[in-house]
Amino acid sequence: MSRSKNTARPLDQLQRLIPADELSFDPDIRDAHKSDKWFATRVPDAVVLATSALTVSRVLRFATEHHIPVTPRGAGVGYVGGCVPSQGGIVLSLARMNRILEIHKADGIARVQPGVITGTLQDAARAQGLFYPPDPASLRECSIGGNIATNAGGPRCLKYGVTRPYILGMETVLPTGEIIHAGGRTHKNKTGFDLVGLFVGSEGLLGIVTEATLRLLPLPPARACISTGFRNIAAAARAVQRVFEGGHLPSALEIADAFTLRAARKHLGTGLVPVGNAHLLLEIDGQVSPVRSEIRSLLTLLREAGALAPVTAFGEEPCERLWNLRRQFSQSLKSTGLTKLNEDIAVPRGRLVDLVRFAAALQKKYGYPIACFGHAGDGNIHVNIMAADYRTNDQVRQQVDRALDELFQQVLSWGGVITGEHGVGLAKKRWWTSALDAPTRALHASLKHALDPAGILNPGKFV
Amino acid sequence: MSRSKNTARPLDQLQRLIPADELSFDPDIRDAHKSDKWFATRVPDAVVLATSALTVSRVLRFATEHHIPVTPRGAGVGYVGGCVPSQGGIVLSLARMNRILEIHKADGIARVQPGVITGTLQDAARAQGLFYPPDPASLRECSIGGNIATNAGGPRCLKYGVTRPYILGMETVLPTGEIIHAGGRTHKNKTGFDLVGLFVGSEGLLGIVTEATLRLLPLPPARACISTGFRNIAAAARAVQRVFEGGHLPSALEIADAFTLRAARKHLGTGLVPVGNAHLLLEIDGQVSPVRSEIRSLLTLLREAGALAPVTAFGEEPCERLWNLRRQFSQSLKSTGLTKLNEDIAVPRGRLVDLVRFAAALQKKYGYPIACFGHAGDGNIHVNIMAADYRTNDQVRQQVDRALDELFQQVLSWGGVITGEHGVGLAKKRWWTSALDAPTRALHASLKHALDPAGILNPGKFV
Repeated sequence: MSRSKNTARPLDQLQRLIPADELSFDPDIRDAHKSDKWFATRVPDAVVLATSALTVSRVLRFATEHHIPVTPRGAGVGYVGGCVPSQGGIVLSLARMNRILEIHKADGIARVQPGVITGTLQDAARAQGLFYPPDPASLRECSIGGNIATNAGGPRCLKYGVTRPYILGMETVLPTGEIIHAGGRTHKNKTGFDLVGLFVGSEGLLGIVTEATLRLLPLPPARACISTGFRNIAAAARAVQRVFEGGHLPSALEIADAFTLRAARKHLGTGLVPVGNAHLLLEIDGQVSPVRSEIRSLLTLLREAGALAPVTAFGEEPCERLWNLRRQFSQSLKSTGLTKLNEDIAVPRGRLVDLVRFAAALQKKYGYPIACFGHAGDGNIHVNIMAADYRTNDQVRQQVDRALDELFQQVLSWGGVITGEHGVGLAKKRWWTSALDAPTRALHASLKHALDPAGILNPGKFV
Repeated sequence: MSRSKNTARPLDQLQRLIPADELSFDPDIRDAHKSDKWFATRVPDAVVLATSALTVSRVLRFATEHHIPVTPRGAGVGYVGGCVPSQGGIVLSLARMNRILEIHKADGIARVQPGVITGTLQDAARAQGLFYPPDPASLRECSIGGNIATNAGGPRCLKYGVTRPYILGMETVLPTGEIIHAGGRTHKNKTGFDLVGLFVGSEGLLGIVTEATLRLLPLPPARACISTGFRNIAAAARAVQRVFEGGHLPSALEIADAFTLRAARKHLGTGLVPVGNAHLLLEIDGQVSPVRSEIRSLLTLLREAGALAPVTAFGEEPCERLWNLRRQFSQSLKSTGLTKLNEDIAVPRGRLVDLVRFAAALQKKYGYPIACFGHAGDGNIHVNIMAADYRTNDQVRQQVDRALDELFQQVLSWGGVITGEHGVGLAKKRWWTSALDAPTRALHASLKHALDPAGILNPGKFV
């Protein structure tokens, strides 16, 4: 790797610019920063474990001068290889910048460093009667910085939106080392362009967030769930439409298909998993008595829509029990021993049944099992192609990639998208040119060039 | 005006590029496109009344080639001079592109042209049991395109957010004439940078939206309001905090001060206007029985917080009656005969009382009445300095501008912002350099240059 060799000398100079304990060439540390949850890996030449915006700024200015790739990294739990240093150089970890700087109840905000674990922030907010809604499945291990980089979603974003609306302000270091301040601590702000929006979801290609001001909501005192089976996925999808037609906006509305349920029954036993060939999990939240009243209406509505043996839970712990079961679905698929290729496509909401039918046809054609589950309410379904030996067998990989090509082509032709919440990273790069037209991709390149003229920040990804 | 003369010849060539009935040099039409609701005016050299993205693209490409200013215009009801063609050239009106192209219930979306009036879209959505939440006060006259340009808010954005989260996709013409497509018709999308966010709120400086796909929610079947007086603004502000501490997230929470109430009593009579020296209007929405139950709890909570003679309304018409009263507050201030300088600053929510006290001190110091009312829930308060002869008397204008300087300086030092929802335009340009630091302003300039290399789109504004 010629670039790695070329960067050896300048990297020595970097030692003089930042504190010694923030830079490591240790092979074990470098190895620990080579990948995320996807399968691509590359060991970086150096790891910066930043503890301040000043360090981040110095590293980026230096890297721009010397044309050294810098790949930012949060908690390293992404699904698309977004933090893999695919061109070597420096991995810049924000994991040590993990302090909650302030939670201000009257203002309804928190100020945090990017390395704060999302679940930790949620707990701290909750202790003050406040609520940070974004809830990616990995919330106990992912960080706010990573959530910002990917504009992370989760089940609750049906009612509450994804990460973007909860970022009021941020301090960001540009690839040239300049430190800018976007937004602030007010809940509304129309001063200039939406720079916060530009950085949120930019997958570490445009800048590195070193502090964020988050919007917190009043904590709803009550929550309630209904978990129910349906005869088939079409019946479950029709129930989803009925819920919306009734003017309900649940905080979450999750669907799972027959393959997922079968895997769960095998893994967890038939007693725990709901009957039927499809499953819905619905949650609402709010004040105690209104939530009790609305969950009763929803139970009636779902029964009329063909719910099989619905179970209702009220309050924190009973609801969490139903969610834990739902979370086990993903684990059950992994326990099949197959590689689970989780494609988080999103389709227009009315295409839910079409999508599941198409996945079934694809399964027949290619012979790989396909499991569908996810966020029915916003059409963001995780389509999991299950393949043995995907990582080691080239032929399997080629076949699966062909199946994925067909899937993505169909999804795009419905007006759907190749990623609803995980991002493009390396995993979806293959379909980037099908997903956007040429002028729109050119605009991405213009923006990237305007902010990162030397092209040093997270190179080798989709732009 | 040398620029106007210089553009005369190229403008003749424009006639050959677009349909004859889409270009006008008529003095009356030009005069009708010289201003918005703010006081700055400038008559453009020509008006393009576009009926297609193709026309918009041709005009912009031509303008970039010939360095002719182009100022986009929606319904022309902005408050900050954002659509005033301050350097002459062409005004490009989107008013004729006013078709609702599609409302799709199962997908939960609408596709519209930019000239669609916001209230018209809301009515069309409601007729199908769907809900478009953004509700700027001017919703019966403003257009979706203008709402996108300013990222328009309104009372309901406390619960539902501003315009941004309701724009799923858009077709946009760049200043160079390229047509790009950002987002789409799915409710979630992580494909690339957030181009939708980049254009929303960019005040017509980065591109012209020619079609938008909007996110629609299920229409909540019930709404209820409480309108109540308080002894003073501090008591009303404390009640606001109590509402949040109770875990309530009202759809709207509006406050008004003593001056506003006095003007309303004079204009409307004492019988109609609530007692006390401060006023709160609160609204919640949702399912019928939960709304009934929550409004009862809120009534108790507000009474305990010192509410004076609260009135409750349930259902569409009774709620609208309370809102009409609230909307009359602004009209009452105008009826004082003074020029109402509406500054839509936003402060951190905990600064509400500080802000109203500061405004009272400012009123004493400068001798101009100051009326405060607005969106208490998100700290976005309209501070209205009331001045006679502001438009005609230079001395008055200088004094008022000094008072505004003090106001903005204080707001910024609290971590507040110079505009919460109206935008910068021409009106707030004076405070632009105090509002953002130099690197952040430089980033605005880089983005502007990347998208608009010839600097033709809405020149003379804040970038």
